[in-house]
Amino acid sequence: MAEPFDIVIFGGSGDLAFRKIVPALYRAFGEAKLPEGSRVVPCYRGALTASEYIAEADAALREHLLEGEYDQAQASEFSSYLTPCALDIKTADARWQTLADLLNTAADRVRVFYLAIPPAIFGVCCQHLSEYGLVSANSRLVVEKPLGYNAASANAINDEIARYFDETAIYRIDHYLGKETVQNLMALRFTNVIFEQLWDAKSIDHVQISISETVGLEGRAGFYNEAGALRDMVQNHLLQLLCLVAMESPHKMKASSIRAEKVKVLEALRPMVGDEVFKHTVRGQYVAGNHNGKLVPGYLEELGEPNSSTETFVALRAYVDNWRWARVPFYLRTGKRMKQRSAEIVIQFKGVSHRVYEPSAGPLLPNRLVIRLQPEETIQLIMMSKDLNTLDMQLQPASLNLNFSESYKHVKSDAYKRLILDAVAANSSLFIHRDEVANAWAWIDPIIEAWQQASQPPHLYRAGTWGPDESDELLAEDGFSWFNSGEALK
Amino acid sequence: MAEPFDIVIFGGSGDLAFRKIVPALYRAFGEAKLPEGSRVVPCYRGALTASEYIAEADAALREHLLEGEYDQAQASEFSSYLTPCALDIKTADARWQTLADLLNTAADRVRVFYLAIPPAIFGVCCQHLSEYGLVSANSRLVVEKPLGYNAASANAINDEIARYFDETAIYRIDHYLGKETVQNLMALRFTNVIFEQLWDAKSIDHVQISISETVGLEGRAGFYNEAGALRDMVQNHLLQLLCLVAMESPHKMKASSIRAEKVKVLEALRPMVGDEVFKHTVRGQYVAGNHNGKLVPGYLEELGEPNSSTETFVALRAYVDNWRWARVPFYLRTGKRMKQRSAEIVIQFKGVSHRVYEPSAGPLLPNRLVIRLQPEETIQLIMMSKDLNTLDMQLQPASLNLNFSESYKHVKSDAYKRLILDAVAANSSLFIHRDEVANAWAWIDPIIEAWQQASQPPHLYRAGTWGPDESDELLAEDGFSWFNSGEALK
Repeated sequence: MAEPFDIVIFGGSGDLAFRKIVPALYRAFGEAKLPEGSRVVPCYRGALTASEYIAEADAALREHLLEGEYDQAQASEFSSYLTPCALDIKTADARWQTLADLLNTAADRVRVFYLAIPPAIFGVCCQHLSEYGLVSANSRLVVEKPLGYNAASANAINDEIARYFDETAIYRIDHYLGKETVQNLMALRFTNVIFEQLWDAKSIDHVQISISETVGLEGRAGFYNEAGALRDMVQNHLLQLLCLVAMESPHKMKASSIRAEKVKVLEALRPMVGDEVFKHTVRGQYVAGNHNGKLVPGYLEELGEPNSSTETFVALRAYVDNWRWARVPFYLRTGKRMKQRSAEIVIQFKGVSHRVYEPSAGPLLPNRLVIRLQPEETIQLIMMSKDLNTLDMQLQPASLNLNFSESYKHVKSDAYKRLILDAVAANSSLFIHRDEVANAWAWIDPIIEAWQQASQPPHLYRAGTWGPDESDELLAEDGFSWFNSGEALK
Repeated sequence: MAEPFDIVIFGGSGDLAFRKIVPALYRAFGEAKLPEGSRVVPCYRGALTASEYIAEADAALREHLLEGEYDQAQASEFSSYLTPCALDIKTADARWQTLADLLNTAADRVRVFYLAIPPAIFGVCCQHLSEYGLVSANSRLVVEKPLGYNAASANAINDEIARYFDETAIYRIDHYLGKETVQNLMALRFTNVIFEQLWDAKSIDHVQISISETVGLEGRAGFYNEAGALRDMVQNHLLQLLCLVAMESPHKMKASSIRAEKVKVLEALRPMVGDEVFKHTVRGQYVAGNHNGKLVPGYLEELGEPNSSTETFVALRAYVDNWRWARVPFYLRTGKRMKQRSAEIVIQFKGVSHRVYEPSAGPLLPNRLVIRLQPEETIQLIMMSKDLNTLDMQLQPASLNLNFSESYKHVKSDAYKRLILDAVAANSSLFIHRDEVANAWAWIDPIIEAWQQASQPPHLYRAGTWGPDESDELLAEDGFSWFNSGEALK
C-alpha cells in the first residue's frame, strides 16, 4: 500500500463533488487505493457541521453510486477518512488557518487541491493556499473545465494559477481521458502492428467522432446558454479524442511526450477562415420532440427565454494538415437531446483497391474500427465476410468484437477515480497541458467569431433525432454519412 | 428451383458414400437444393435389392447425421429420389445397360458421376461410361483423393480419366476446400483492406497450418501404412490451405483464375534437396498413450505388425519463394492420435517496430490471426489491449472473435454438400486442377525419396500429445513455437 495522502476539495458540497469526486474516492477506498491515514478534506461555504456534511456525502453516495455498489459498512468506514472543513474561499479568516493547521500536521505528504469551483475564484483560492503556506513541493492542483470561454480568458486563468503552481503541478481534467477505452485507444494504436501500419491517409478514408447526449439543460441553463456546444464539448472532449486518434507515436508513454504529440496535432488543425467556417460547420438547436415516447420541451422552453441563438448541436469537418493525415476529413459531432446517448470514434478505412467478386455477391463495405466509449465500452472491427447462411457467395459485414464491460465485471470503471489517483501518483499523461488548452482555443475562437459576425440562427432539430438535416448534408457533400450509434454495430 | 439433375455414385454402398455423400444429399434435399425429379443413383457391387439399399442408406443417415438432423418424414421423402443400381464396375454386362437406359431417359440433364471407389478402377469405370454412351456434354466426373502415391501415379490416373473426360468436366474433391471457413479465408483476404495491406513478408512473420486428428487408423490400416501422413494429408489438404493463404489475388473469383494462382504458389514452393529434407522435416509415429484418460494402443499394435516406419505425423518448414513471401516460413503439421482434433491456420504478424510502453507494462505479443476450421469454425484476431482489471497500464492479449457456429445455426455446414452442388452448378473454383496435383506431388516426391533412402525410423510420440519433441525443436530453431489448438484462443 502506498503512502497516505491528503485531498482537499474546494466546492466540497457542490454538484461535481457529490456526483463525481466523493463517489470516486469511495471506490478508490473500496479498492484499497486510499491508504490508511489519508484525509479527504471537503471545503465548503455554509453552515454545515462536519457530521451534517458526512450525512450529505452519504446521501450522495446512495444516490450516485451504481446499483449494488453502495455498502453500508464500507461507506461508514470511508466516512472516517472525511474531514470536512467549512470555509469561505474568498475570505482569509480563521477557517483557512484551521485548514492550514490540519494539513500541516502532515506537511510532507502528497497533497491534492481539487478546485471544484468556478474559474473566477481559482485565483483567490490559489492565493490563499499560497498565503497560508499550503503550496508544498508535493502539492498538486486539479482543475476542471470549463477553463475560460476563449483563448484570452483561458490564458488568463492559466496565468493566474501559474503564479502559485508550476505547470508540472497542475492537473487539468478532461474526464473523457479517464475512460479506460481512451487509454486503450493508445494501447491499441501503439502495441498492434496491424493498426500501426494502417493508421494514415493511405489506408484511412475518414474519421468520425461523435458524442451525443439525450439530456437537455439539466440545471446548467445560465452557463450553457453563454457557452454553447462548441465551447462546452468540442473545444475539450472532442478535440482531445481527435488528438488521441491523430497523434504520432510518442517515443515513450510519458506525459511530456504524449502531451507534446497532442499539441502538434492541435497546431496542425487547419484553421477555418471567413466563409470556410460556414462551409465546414453546422450549428443546431433542439425544439420540442420525442424522447422515448415522451414529449420533451425545446431549448427555449427549458431556458425560459423567448430568444437564444446558442447552439446545442455542432457538426464540423476538420483537417489535420500533416503528412500522416493529408486530406483525411475528421468529422466531429455533438449535441444535446439526441436520439441516443453515446460517444463513439469511427475509423473508416478505404475500400479495397480492386473488387474480385461478382456484383451478385453484394456490396463491399470498407473496413471500420468502432471505438465506443459510451454507454458501454466496446471495440469493434467491422469487416466483410461470407454470408454463412447461403451456399452462394454472398458477402456481408461481420463484426469482430471486444466487449470490455464483459471482461471487466469486478472493477468499476470510473474516470474520476483514475484521474484523481493519477494526480496523486504525479502521472500527468491523461491531463491537459496549458499549451493544449491554448491551441484548442486558438482553433475554436475564429469559428465562434465568424458565427457571431454572421449572427445566423442555428438550424433547428427535433429533440430525439440525430440533429439537423444540415449535419447529414455536411457528410453527404463528401459522399459519406454518419454512423449513428447502434447502427454502427450492424 | 433449378433444373433436376442425376448423380451416380460408384461405390454407392461404401464407407464414403454412406458417411458423407448420402448425408450431404439428404441435407441438400432438406434445403430444397435437390430439384424435384432429380435422381440419386448409387451403384454398388453385391446382391442388395433396391429396398435393402434404401434401408441401409436410411440406417446410414441415422448414424451419420448430426443430433437432431434426422427427420423421419424428410428421410422417407428423400429416399424416393434414390434409384439404387447393383452393378459390377469392371463387368460390362446387362446391369451397365440398365444404368444407361435409366440415365438416358433424361439424356440432356446435368449428370454427375461420383467415383467413390479406388483409383485403380477409375479407368475401367470411365471406359464403361464412355462405351455405354453416358459421357454427355453435361456430364461431370467427381473424384476423391487419394489420387496416386507420387507424381507418376497421379499423372497416370489423371491421364486415364482424361481419355474420357475433359479437364473442365473433372472435379477433384479436397473436402477441406468445401468448408465455409476456407471460402471465407478468400473472402477475408480479398474484400478487407486491412488484410490486403498486411498480407506479405513485410508484415507477416510466419504462418502455421496444423491439422491434428485424435483418431488412429480407423480401419484404413492397409492403405495408411502404405501412404503415411505426408501423402495422406500434406500433399493435398495442407498444401491446399497453404495455397489459399499464399496465393495472389486473382483478378476475378473464377475457377480458372483461382486455380492458376494456386498453381503459381505450388510452383514457387522451394524444393527440398538432399540433406535439406532432414533439416526441414520431422517424421513421427505414435506409441501407446493417454487419450482422454484412456490407454490407447500405439501404431504398431493397431497395425498388428512388428515393424513399420510409416509416419503418422509430419511437421515441416516450407518457403514460398516469391516477392510476397520471401523468407517467411510456412510451418505445416499433421498427425494422428494427437492431443486434440483441430484444423487451424495461424497468421503470425511481426511485432511492432518500437515499444513505447515501460517494461513493467508486460510483454508485447505480436498480432495473430487464427482461422479455425475444426472442430468449430471461428476467426480470431489476437491483439494487445490494456488490462482492464487494473488502473496500472498493464498490457494483455485480447481476442476479437467471429464465431460462425453461432451466426450459423439454421444451415448445416457440410463440405460435401457444398462441393456436390458446386459440381452440379459447374462451379469448379473449389476443386483441384490436375496441374495442382502434379505440382504438389513434384514438391512431395523428393521428400519421400530422401526419407526412403535414409531409411531412418520416425521419431516416436505418445498418443495424446502434440507429436515428437523434434517438432517443437523445428520451430524453436527459428525462435517460434507451435500454437496448439485451444492454447491459441487464450
